[in-house]
Amino acid sequence: MTIEVVAIGNEILRGAVVNTNATFISRELAKAGWLTCRHTVLPDDLASLKQALKEALNRSTIVIATGGLGPTVDDLSRLAAADIFSSELIYDERVGSDLKKRFGPDLQSLEDQAKIPKGAIALLNPVGTAPAIILQRHGNILILLPGVPVEMEAIFKEKLLPFLRAHLPFAKSCYTKEIHIALQTESSIDPILRDIRDRHPEVEIGIYPSYGTVSVYLKGEDADLLAKLKEKITQTFDTFVFEAPDGKIEEAVHLAMIVMGKTLALAESCTGGAIAARLTALPGASDYFLGSLVTYSNEWKAKFLALKERTLHDKGAVSKDTVLGMLEGLFENTGADVALAVSGVAGPSGGTAAVPVGTIWAAFGERGKPCDAVTFRILGNRQKIIQVTSSRLLAALWRKMIYNQSSFSS
Amino acid sequence: MTIEVVAIGNEILRGAVVNTNATFISRELAKAGWLTCRHTVLPDDLASLKQALKEALNRSTIVIATGGLGPTVDDLSRLAAADIFSSELIYDERVGSDLKKRFGPDLQSLEDQAKIPKGAIALLNPVGTAPAIILQRHGNILILLPGVPVEMEAIFKEKLLPFLRAHLPFAKSCYTKEIHIALQTESSIDPILRDIRDRHPEVEIGIYPSYGTVSVYLKGEDADLLAKLKEKITQTFDTFVFEAPDGKIEEAVHLAMIVMGKTLALAESCTGGAIAARLTALPGASDYFLGSLVTYSNEWKAKFLALKERTLHDKGAVSKDTVLGMLEGLFENTGADVALAVSGVAGPSGGTAAVPVGTIWAAFGERGKPCDAVTFRILGNRQKIIQVTSSRLLAALWRKMIYNQSSFSS
Repeated sequence: MTIEVVAIGNEILRGAVVNTNATFISRELAKAGWLTCRHTVLPDDLASLKQALKEALNRSTIVIATGGLGPTVDDLSRLAAADIFSSELIYDERVGSDLKKRFGPDLQSLEDQAKIPKGAIALLNPVGTAPAIILQRHGNILILLPGVPVEMEAIFKEKLLPFLRAHLPFAKSCYTKEIHIALQTESSIDPILRDIRDRHPEVEIGIYPSYGTVSVYLKGEDADLLAKLKEKITQTFDTFVFEAPDGKIEEAVHLAMIVMGKTLALAESCTGGAIAARLTALPGASDYFLGSLVTYSNEWKAKFLALKERTLHDKGAVSKDTVLGMLEGLFENTGADVALAVSGVAGPSGGTAAVPVGTIWAAFGERGKPCDAVTFRILGNRQKIIQVTSSRLLAALWRKMIYNQSSFSS
Repeated sequence: MTIEVVAIGNEILRGAVVNTNATFISRELAKAGWLTCRHTVLPDDLASLKQALKEALNRSTIVIATGGLGPTVDDLSRLAAADIFSSELIYDERVGSDLKKRFGPDLQSLEDQAKIPKGAIALLNPVGTAPAIILQRHGNILILLPGVPVEMEAIFKEKLLPFLRAHLPFAKSCYTKEIHIALQTESSIDPILRDIRDRHPEVEIGIYPSYGTVSVYLKGEDADLLAKLKEKITQTFDTFVFEAPDGKIEEAVHLAMIVMGKTLALAESCTGGAIAARLTALPGASDYFLGSLVTYSNEWKAKFLALKERTLHDKGAVSKDTVLGMLEGLFENTGADVALAVSGVAGPSGGTAAVPVGTIWAAFGERGKPCDAVTFRILGNRQKIIQVTSSRLLAALWRKMIYNQSSFSS
C-alpha cells in the first residue's frame, strides 16, 4: 500500500505559503505506521489538477489532497475529483444540515460547501465549512481535505485518522512509542539512537526536533522490545523526558500546574506574550493561569512589577537583577504560587558587545522557596529567538516544579 | 517555459522536516519573473528518483532539485542525473581545487564531492562542499542543488540566479498585483473576482484567506489592466484594504503606530497574549508597544485594571461594561496613547446560553477621544476563536486609527 500527499494552491507554488500541511499529514501517518512516498504541489488549474491526480492514483493506493475546497472561483478540487471518478456533484443532506446547525441557515456558501461527488463519503468539518471527501474505486482512494491548517488538522485527527485505521490494512501489526525530551539537542540524542539502530535494524527510528525540544519515535512489530527501548532512552535522559499528548512542552507545564493545584503568573519582556499565548491555547488554562504582565517597555516594568529605576539603569533591562526584581514584583503584586520572569534581546537591533542579540535572562520558582536565575544565548533570527526562549523556559520551569532541578548556568 | 522544483529526502516524506527549500526557490523565481508549476518531494531511492526526474523533464523545461548531493550512502542525486543524461561521473579539477583551497587537502569527502557528470556545468558552493550541477540536453535543463538550506540559499542567490538570468528567455513579461482586505469573508470578495474572470479570462486570480483577512493576487501580461483591476477592487472594499509587506494585519497596525508616533497598550483576557505576541514578532515593536496586561483571571482585571468587582459580578467578565472598564484602566494606569481591551469565551467550556462559546467583547480607541465597544461571535474551536479574534481586533483597531470607522455592532 502506497500513500501520496498532494497540496493544491498557487500560493504555495508562488512561494508565499510553506506547505506545512504535507508535513503534518506525513508525520501523523508515520506515527500511525504508514509511510508517505511522495509529496506534490499543484496549481489551481483544473486541467493540471485532473491530469496530476489521475497519475497519482495510478501510482499509489491512496492520494490525500489538501486545499481547493473553498466556495470561491479558484477552488477546483471537487470538480477535478468528480470528473476523475466520473461522478457528479450533488447536495449532501447530512453535510447541509450540519452546516445549517453550526453556521445558521443563511450561510452564503452553504449550497456550494454541501455539494460532494455522488457516491463519495463526507467527513464533517469540526471547525470550518468544507467537509473532507473520500472517493473510492477499484481499491484506490482519493481523499480531499480543506487547506486551512487548523481545519485540516482537526478533521485529520478527529475524523480521517479513525476512518483510515478502521478501513486500511496494516501489512503487519505494528506498534509505536514516542519519547519527548526537553533541553537537549538532536546531536546529544543521536548516539543512543545509532546504537539502537545497530542492534535492532528492524526498528524504525524517527527524530523530530522542535524549538527547544526533541521527539523520538520508535516503530516496530515487537511491542515488548519497543517498551524496553523506550525505557532505555527514558533512563538515559531521565529528568529531561516529559509526557505530553501532542509532544508540546506547554502541555507538560499545564498538566503539572493542574495536578499540583498551584497558580502561575508570568512577566514577559522579550517573549512579548508568546509564553502566555502558548499556555492559554490549551483548554483549561484558566484553572491555574492568572495572567502575564507583558512589560515590553521599561516604564511598565517599573509600574507593574515595582522594579526600581536604579536596577534598570545600573544593571540594564537584560540582567540577573532585573529578572529577579521582576519575579519579586510578580510575587508581591499577585497571589501566584509559581512565577516566571524573562527579559532578553530578540533583535535584530538592540544588541551590544556586552549583551548581544539572543541573550536571555530569566528567573522562576515557587513563592517562599529558593528561585532560579538563568541565562543563555540563542543564535538565529527574531522569530527563532522568541520561540526557543519560550520552549526552553517552559521546560526549565517544568523541571524546576517536578524535579526541583536547575537547567542552565546563572 | 515551465519550471518544476523537486526536493529529495526521506526526512521530508516522514514529516520530520518542512520543505522550505521549495518555498525559497519559488519565491526567488517569482521575484525574477518566473513561475513554478509544480513541487515534488521524492524519497532517497535511486529507481524512484530516476523515474520521477525523467517524468519531470518530459513535462517541464527546467527541473531544479534540492538534496541528495551529500557524501553519504543515501545521497543519490548525482547518480540519478548521470544515468538520465547517459553520462558518467568524473573528477572536476575546478571543483576539486576550490574544495582543497577552502577545506584543506585532507577533506574526507573531497573525491566524492568533486565528481560531477561529464559535460555538466558546476557552480561552486560558497558555503559548504557540494557544488550546484547543471545538465542540459535538447533545451531541457536539470539543476542539482545541495539540500542544506543555508548552502542552497547562498548558491541559489549568488550563483544560480545570475546564471538563469543570463541564459533563460522570458517568454512574456508578467506582472502581479496583490490586495489585502480585512474583516471581509472569501464569499463577500468572490463576486467581484468572478466578474473580473468573466471579463478578463487572461488574468490569473488567486484568493487566499487567512484568519480574519483575505489576500487577492492578480497576475497577467498587461500591467495597466492589472493596475486598473487593483484599483477597482480597492475602491470596492475601500477602508477595508490595507498595505502590508507579508499581508499580515499586524504589520498594518505596526506601521500605522510608527507613522502616527503613538504608543499602544493592550489588556487581553481570552486572547491570552496572542495579540501582543503577533505585534512583538515584528522587529521594531518596542518603538510604540508599551505592553499587554494579560489579565486572564478576574483578580488580575481588578488589580491591574482597577476594574470594579461590582462590574464583574453584575455584568460578567465578557460584557460591554467590563471591556470598557478594562480600557479605562489601561488609560488610567499607563501612558498609552492608544489602547485595546478584549474579553471573551474561547471555550470549549465556560459558555452559557446568554454568553455562548465564541462570544467576544472588545473596546479600543485613542486617549481622550470617543472609543468603540464592539461584540461579535466566532464559531470554531478554541484555536480558531483566539486567532480570528486577534486578527479581527487588530483590523478593527487599524481602521479606527486610520479612518475612524467602526467595524462591528456594539
